[in-house]
Amino acid sequence: MARLLTSGTVLVLGGARSGKSAFAEKLVLESGLQPLYVATAQVWDDEMRTRVEAHRKRRQTQWQTMEEPLELPKLLKREARQGRAILVDCLTLWVTNLMLAEANISDRFASLCAALHGCEGLVVLVSNEVGQGIVPDNKMARDFRDHAGRLHQDVAALADQVHFIAAGLPLTLKG
Amino acid sequence: MARLLTSGTVLVLGGARSGKSAFAEKLVLESGLQPLYVATAQVWDDEMRTRVEAHRKRRQTQWQTMEEPLELPKLLKREARQGRAILVDCLTLWVTNLMLAEANISDRFASLCAALHGCEGLVVLVSNEVGQGIVPDNKMARDFRDHAGRLHQDVAALADQVHFIAAGLPLTLKG
Amino acid sequence: MARLLTSGTVLVLGGARSGKSAFAEKLVLESGLQPLYVATAQVWDDEMRTRVEAHRKRRQTQWQTMEEPLELPKLLKREARQGRAILVDCLTLWVTNLMLAEANISDRFASLCAALHGCEGLVVLVSNEVGQGIVPDNKMARDFRDHAGRLHQDVAALADQVHFIAAGLPLTLKG
Repeated sequence: MARLLTSGTVLVLGGARSGKSAFAEKLVLESGLQPLYVATAQVWDDEMRTRVEAHRKRRQTQWQTMEEPLELPKLLKREARQGRAILVDCLTLWVTNLMLAEANISDRFASLCAALHGCEGLVVLVSNEVGQGIVPDNKMARDFRDHAGRLHQDVAALADQVHFIAAGLPLTLKG
Repeated sequence: MARLLTSGTVLVLGGARSGKSAFAEKLVLESGLQPLYVATAQVWDDEMRTRVEAHRKRRQTQWQTMEEPLELPKLLKREARQGRAILVDCLTLWVTNLMLAEANISDRFASLCAALHGCEGLVVLVSNEVGQGIVPDNKMARDFRDHAGRLHQDVAALADQVHFIAAGLPLTLKG
Repeated sequence: MARLLTSGTVLVLGGARSGKSAFAEKLVLESGLQPLYVATAQVWDDEMRTRVEAHRKRRQTQWQTMEEPLELPKLLKREARQGRAILVDCLTLWVTNLMLAEANISDRFASLCAALHGCEGLVVLVSNEVGQGIVPDNKMARDFRDHAGRLHQDVAALADQVHFIAAGLPLTLKG
């Protein structure tokens, strides 16, 4: 298991169904801090609803929950504080939401990094590794892959810990 | 190279053409146990036939071979024994076969884990990492990715060793 | 950071936007050797032009630059020498170019490995991990994935160092 943090930034990367959310939740619960779950998911359809429900069931009632598809930097500035652990699940959905909203991606990434730099307490960010398959056919998917990859690099550069999860097992890249 | 086992469960994960089968075969041969190769592949077309033949050629004549597309838990219960090393190649094809047969996936995964728990001798399971690309367009591929990811987590949790192979080189996640 | 080399072969693998090129450039610059950048990219369209320009801007003026879409083994034989560090960016585009040119893939891979075996000075090769997503629908993409995977295994087997980059952070597989 990872070295326990009670403040700072942790990035948890992994493929689909790699166990990254469960790992991140464990990090937060073991910190002993007051847990806040921030969902970036926008529920479009039944498939998404099922996924969100499965995540919700696993978390225990001690979690406070917020939904924030777009204004993640503002939320962190407002909510992060000593004694609290915020779990953001997940950055890749945030990137998707920014693209759909035609937001200025570079500006938003800079805002997120600035917010993380200024945060008190612990912030654990979950994100999907999406760049290790074949180059996608359509430009939007390629752009998404590029944005996600750049965000991972930006966040990893300032993070105190970076973990890559495969088959539920962590590989520590930093920290 | 990995620490040598003569009993227990080993999971060997990796991308396409990562060298995972060759690594798993080496583990089995170095164990000194009697090797049994279990293919889950169902040969549909010439492309598949070519792949199966390439694998077959690399293995030496000392291997016993069985084909079992669906009833993997039963096969393990029947065939696993002290002094024997079983190589299952691969779990992702088994998942595909279960989906095509409209089997109850959760039940089958539970049966496999129960069988592995009860096994004597060595069982080495090869599987494809398929969850680190862009989210696939079609639901069946997303379901497949989810099933494969969940199975990897289940098997990794009970395995004695888990290795991730890239460019023919192992990264030990557990053991 | 990786142990510093002034001669030999280094393979730098990673997904899209993983930071692999920046990592490879750093390795070359920190070697203190005279840097030569070899681009395998063939510029087809504006999207590619933008990517190439972004890479070019990041590199400093001290770099010499060559473009070689196909005859990589010949270039290495001709240009590699003591005191020089060659950065090849990237092998996956070279594989694509070979496939489009209907070259004999196995022969070319053997030539590359022979050239690398004979090289003086440092050669750092960047390549994309493309085999960890869902099996692609079309045969050409599956063939490409197979070729790339086999090349990675071949080069990794003879390399002095192999690094896997995720979120800008290196994981050393060898060396």
